[in-house]
Amino acid sequence: MRYAFDIGEYHARLAQVRAAMARANLDCLFITDPSNMGWLTGYDGWSFYVHQGVIVTHDADPIWWGRLQDVAGAVRTTWMGEGGSVGYGEHYIQTSAHHPMEDLAARVSGCVGVEMDNYYFSAKAYAVLENAGLILIDATSLVNWCRAVKSDAEIAFMRKAARISEAVIDGMAERIEPGVRKNEVVAAAYSDAIRGVGGDWGDYPAIVPLVPSGADAAAPHLTWNGDPFRRGEATTLEIAGCYRRYHTPLCRSVFLGQPPDEMKRAEAAVIEGVEAGIDAARAGNQARDVAAALNRALRVVGIERTARCGYPIGLSYPPDWGERTISFRAEDDTVLTPNMTFHFMPGLWMEEWGLAITESIRITEDGPAECFCNRPRELITKR
Amino acid sequence: MRYAFDIGEYHARLAQVRAAMARANLDCLFITDPSNMGWLTGYDGWSFYVHQGVIVTHDADPIWWGRLQDVAGAVRTTWMGEGGSVGYGEHYIQTSAHHPMEDLAARVSGCVGVEMDNYYFSAKAYAVLENAGLILIDATSLVNWCRAVKSDAEIAFMRKAARISEAVIDGMAERIEPGVRKNEVVAAAYSDAIRGVGGDWGDYPAIVPLVPSGADAAAPHLTWNGDPFRRGEATTLEIAGCYRRYHTPLCRSVFLGQPPDEMKRAEAAVIEGVEAGIDAARAGNQARDVAAALNRALRVVGIERTARCGYPIGLSYPPDWGERTISFRAEDDTVLTPNMTFHFMPGLWMEEWGLAITESIRITEDGPAECFCNRPRELITKR
Repeated sequence: MRYAFDIGEYHARLAQVRAAMARANLDCLFITDPSNMGWLTGYDGWSFYVHQGVIVTHDADPIWWGRLQDVAGAVRTTWMGEGGSVGYGEHYIQTSAHHPMEDLAARVSGCVGVEMDNYYFSAKAYAVLENAGLILIDATSLVNWCRAVKSDAEIAFMRKAARISEAVIDGMAERIEPGVRKNEVVAAAYSDAIRGVGGDWGDYPAIVPLVPSGADAAAPHLTWNGDPFRRGEATTLEIAGCYRRYHTPLCRSVFLGQPPDEMKRAEAAVIEGVEAGIDAARAGNQARDVAAALNRALRVVGIERTARCGYPIGLSYPPDWGERTISFRAEDDTVLTPNMTFHFMPGLWMEEWGLAITESIRITEDGPAECFCNRPRELITKR
Repeated sequence: MRYAFDIGEYHARLAQVRAAMARANLDCLFITDPSNMGWLTGYDGWSFYVHQGVIVTHDADPIWWGRLQDVAGAVRTTWMGEGGSVGYGEHYIQTSAHHPMEDLAARVSGCVGVEMDNYYFSAKAYAVLENAGLILIDATSLVNWCRAVKSDAEIAFMRKAARISEAVIDGMAERIEPGVRKNEVVAAAYSDAIRGVGGDWGDYPAIVPLVPSGADAAAPHLTWNGDPFRRGEATTLEIAGCYRRYHTPLCRSVFLGQPPDEMKRAEAAVIEGVEAGIDAARAGNQARDVAAALNRALRVVGIERTARCGYPIGLSYPPDWGERTISFRAEDDTVLTPNMTFHFMPGLWMEEWGLAITESIRITEDGPAECFCNRPRELITKR
């Protein structure tokens, strides 16, 4: 069996989910987010391109439900093991004639919570279950919220991921030179990420490396191409090391040549803002306090930042390494608690350039947040 | 501008989609599948972890719609360029207080087609649009079907991807040895895939390398870990080279030592079945004919295969490199047409081992299908 944590940890997670189900008056919870499935059962496989999920009730072990051929993977990776999974037939796969939820409908009953706003629970899935007469309740993020405070075992995984993040950023910063092609640097970054650090092998991150340069760095989510790096441009590096599905994102920017004054002023403000934010990221404070601390520093140099500047991190599957619950922004009054973990992400996306100096952090028992990674906060400059 | 094809090709695609919309009596089509968005507009970015889409009408250019900060990416990658995209505000992002579809609802009207069974159109998205009083029609796969027959320019991209697939499989087969750790081989495979071949840089595949060994190869979708390869085990390699989002998947199995007779017999049957299937994959034949040809060969050695044995391939984003339209299986009577492209995938997932020898193929004008890759069909055996 290859699930990642002690069975006791999974039992504690299940108890936590059941308590949340009880508060929401749910008899049954059907979770489809692969991160929630993995967190609760250990399931790990790239099968989320077909309909699948985990059925949670109050009085029996969770049941992994999915494509018949993936039951073999569920038996191998979940703590429920043999007998803890059921499969639907191949004739349900990617056809308009049948839908897998016709199979699921017979396996759940009562008030059933479903993750209505999730990549892996489609409008059609909902419609099929509703047509089958089920009582469906929106339980989006119910499990995500249970994941917010990490166990010590999870924190230990994230520390391993952080060593990988550092190795990846170091390697990229070293290899970026004028004339070197972007895909060559990304190829080596993937190699570093998956080779891992020491004996700790690297897993695939939930987002691919984002490496926009120059004016393209105004666009946060461009991936790479085969263009060469150029003198006079900043490149944003947004990556995450991943250890057994646990992520610690880390961003740095690399400038080839002499950065313009405008960018140097922004760098200084971001560094000050990150320090202020980390100081504000204390147990008992609110999520909004971190954003306010950052934004105060940025406003001094005339930068009005509108995007949120952080989100929770931990176990994730594509397409997002965030947990989609808390955000560091003015509207979010969530109280911070020890062992909550975040990517504090004050990226700047200006008209003609971008800059990112970020930290993955842990809320501590008393004092400012702890950074998972240990790398200088600076615009990395190569003359 | 970095869209991948001539503007004329995008115009032709748009005309094709509009004709399909007319047949379905749609005034408007809202597409959310990143592959459909990219195929129709050129859009390319890892922003599909938030709600986004493309609005298609009969009388104006398509409009890219998404998060405000991603408009910069849309301007840079779509043929509609400046003015061809609109963004919604940051306060809609990952919160239960607002939903991005509240913004979209005001931008569409009439009979609106939506992709109801898609990873990137959630049950909640549908509910918000429906509550806004819109008339929604299920248009799942409308654009996917338009993608089935490839242009010559697309085929040229897939040939480049095929060179990458070959390089990746060659490298993995060479590096797999008893005692070598699995993640080390995957790290090098990623490096080969993204470095590309010649000047053709590699893009990220929509599925990560799948490399189960021994009894684990009974489970089709397990990813890697840090375990060493062992003598006496077969490892299934399922990978795809990717060139500018176009994929040509390729699988081979590698055995360390002397394969058991049972596996050799299965190998011979699969090779015969692949040859028979390729011969049956002719313009004018049906999808089911390919499956029937394969299954005849397998039945000779007593293997009853229930899973479909192929699916269309081309432009894709995670989590699937298939197009989710046609399947090679008994129930599918789709007539094959020149320049349809498939991953012919007769993988075997037995109790105690797995075996995969597959081909990415193109339906030709006259004659059997053409294979994109050129590698021996065999169980690669290393003594």
